[in-house]
Amino acid sequence: MPTLVLIRHGQSAWNLENRFTGWWDVDLTEQGVKEAWAAGEMLREKGHDFDLTFTSFQSRAIKTLNLALEAMGRLWLPTEKSWKLNERHYGGLTGLDKAETAARHGDEQVKIWRRSFDIPPPLPEEGSPWDLAKDLRYRGVPIPQTESLKNTIDRVLPYWEERIAPELKSGKRVLISAHGNSLRALVKHLSGISDDEIASLEIPTGQPIVYELDADLNATDRYYLSER
Amino acid sequence: MPTLVLIRHGQSAWNLENRFTGWWDVDLTEQGVKEAWAAGEMLREKGHDFDLTFTSFQSRAIKTLNLALEAMGRLWLPTEKSWKLNERHYGGLTGLDKAETAARHGDEQVKIWRRSFDIPPPLPEEGSPWDLAKDLRYRGVPIPQTESLKNTIDRVLPYWEERIAPELKSGKRVLISAHGNSLRALVKHLSGISDDEIASLEIPTGQPIVYELDADLNATDRYYLSER
Repeated sequence: MPTLVLIRHGQSAWNLENRFTGWWDVDLTEQGVKEAWAAGEMLREKGHDFDLTFTSFQSRAIKTLNLALEAMGRLWLPTEKSWKLNERHYGGLTGLDKAETAARHGDEQVKIWRRSFDIPPPLPEEGSPWDLAKDLRYRGVPIPQTESLKNTIDRVLPYWEERIAPELKSGKRVLISAHGNSLRALVKHLSGISDDEIASLEIPTGQPIVYELDADLNATDRYYLSER
Repeated sequence: MPTLVLIRHGQSAWNLENRFTGWWDVDLTEQGVKEAWAAGEMLREKGHDFDLTFTSFQSRAIKTLNLALEAMGRLWLPTEKSWKLNERHYGGLTGLDKAETAARHGDEQVKIWRRSFDIPPPLPEEGSPWDLAKDLRYRGVPIPQTESLKNTIDRVLPYWEERIAPELKSGKRVLISAHGNSLRALVKHLSGISDDEIASLEIPTGQPIVYELDADLNATDRYYLSER
């Protein structure tokens, strides 16, 4: 039966500072590096192995994957990288920490943006330092200006259907290293979580989530690897 | 015009101990990690950029690539990994250091194996600890028992023609992280070096070699990046 493991990248510098990150390319902290390595060691110790790996275009997810693969002795596995597995784009909230966001927009509004399913954050301001237009990795990519969780799901799921699901159906064991919201998109789809509930489902950093799937890729089990 | 950069992996533990490594999966030393990072920094500082990267199935070349890409801010570039870019397989010499090899086979014989074009080292002994038959990365791969430099070239060049040359011809800028002998294969081909001379051409670890190529992939220039 197909097996899928999801890992959210280890702690990033802006996770630690509680800033909205989104598509900004923030590095792992030292703790994040350790989390990634520990995830790989746990996968190896518990006998998980893979044929194919996927990640985003963002360094924190790619490094998490590379560190986990190194800890597993599996650096040689093929990896497909896609912007479609990127974090949700936080628009005009990018770069703001909790206090700045509350000061500008008020706590209630921030909670709405963070926890609603289909309300995107505001557009970036003119001349924002977090503009990605000149980032070469996104040449030819329709960079969003801002994304609701629903917008994120709407780009993750087609990628899942086109690139990942066929590999699982053909018997490949797949590891995905990605982000809180691109993984929410997958968990919502695989576990049938409602629009209302998905935004409050927390996905901890560096904790492998194992999906056991049937031949049609319906989830028969989902658990944190640390709990088995 | 197409640009190609070659990097031999940074110093490995067995480079340092002067042991024949070949297909054995030996890690980088701390110095090797620094060399890889410095190579990426130099590429970035000197304005080199890439569209596509290639490496072997061996951790020391993959890590060198990953570290260089991280130093360049290019972790998101696509990477194709292939056993066909692996180091030459040293057969029964694998794992032996200089003194052990000389004691078993004599200095003259070792020089012949190391420097001849088409004489492969002896086959591995029965029950050798360096057997790769159970290494999952080589499932389905025709693992050689031993290889001359010519044997190495005979697997590297078809891969070059099938996978790398078409990308260069289509205008992609390519970075290859590989090994002393798989890179000799490419340098011999691109620079038209004779069978007699190629085995003694030294390729230093962690030093980017830049090839400028014409549209038919004939080399118009070749230089160490550190020298320009």
